[in-house]
Amino acid sequence: MSTLDAKSAQDLAARLTYNQAGLIPAIAQQADTGEVLMMAWMNVEAVVETLVSGRVCYYSRSRSKLWRKGERSGQVQMLNEFRWDCDEDTILMMVDQKGVACHTGRRNCFYNAVRNGTSEIISDVEINPDDLYS
Amino acid sequence: MSTLDAKSAQDLAARLTYNQAGLIPAIAQQADTGEVLMMAWMNVEAVVETLVSGRVCYYSRSRSKLWRKGERSGQVQMLNEFRWDCDEDTILMMVDQKGVACHTGRRNCFYNAVRNGTSEIISDVEINPDDLYS
Repeated sequence: MSTLDAKSAQDLAARLTYNQAGLIPAIAQQADTGEVLMMAWMNVEAVVETLVSGRVCYYSRSRSKLWRKGERSGQVQMLNEFRWDCDEDTILMMVDQKGVACHTGRRNCFYNAVRNGTSEIISDVEINPDDLYS
Repeated sequence: MSTLDAKSAQDLAARLTYNQAGLIPAIAQQADTGEVLMMAWMNVEAVVETLVSGRVCYYSRSRSKLWRKGERSGQVQMLNEFRWDCDEDTILMMVDQKGVACHTGRRNCFYNAVRNGTSEIISDVEINPDDLYS
């Protein structure tokens, strides 16, 4: 795991480019398998908290507040390595996802696919969502 | 490769959710290695073209027009499988990237990382950008 002290985290967060709403897209990829789990958004505060704590924290656009991944479901994401792109406007985090990343109870959010000329659901629900958010 | 006819592609593109600028984020992942190459944006037209042609087409925000990946550099992205997420507002494409995905000449765009408490560049330039855009 590669965390930063608060000052270094603030410096890095300030270096990134955010959209007009103050947000930057962040992709989470399972470190050992390479599975892309999800994409969500971060504001400066979420970037700093993630870098300092080593636990992934997003910004929830629907709830308009910090979203410590797993805070309700227990399905936390621990940061393995924080990366960002050439334009400094997109984050890629190598993570270790406990349980499932998707609120539907699937391991990852990208379970819709085009196969054989039509839309298919390509992964199964592993945990009943009612059990995740009870 | 899993392409669609024009009508099916239009139906799928219409089902997705776009932001206020009419764009949806699209992540490209190398199909065989799992390497996350880049994230860029698509509009409805780019989604349809990608699904029908099997060659990835983005929407360039800086140039305000369709961007057929590799049209200048030759570094094309062929679509292997088109996926999208639970909220239907993010695309994940399994692709086969010819050469390098990044305009800096690196294989992927996410070459900045936090390691050992500081920022590091973790991948090398494979093709001189002057040769990519000459």
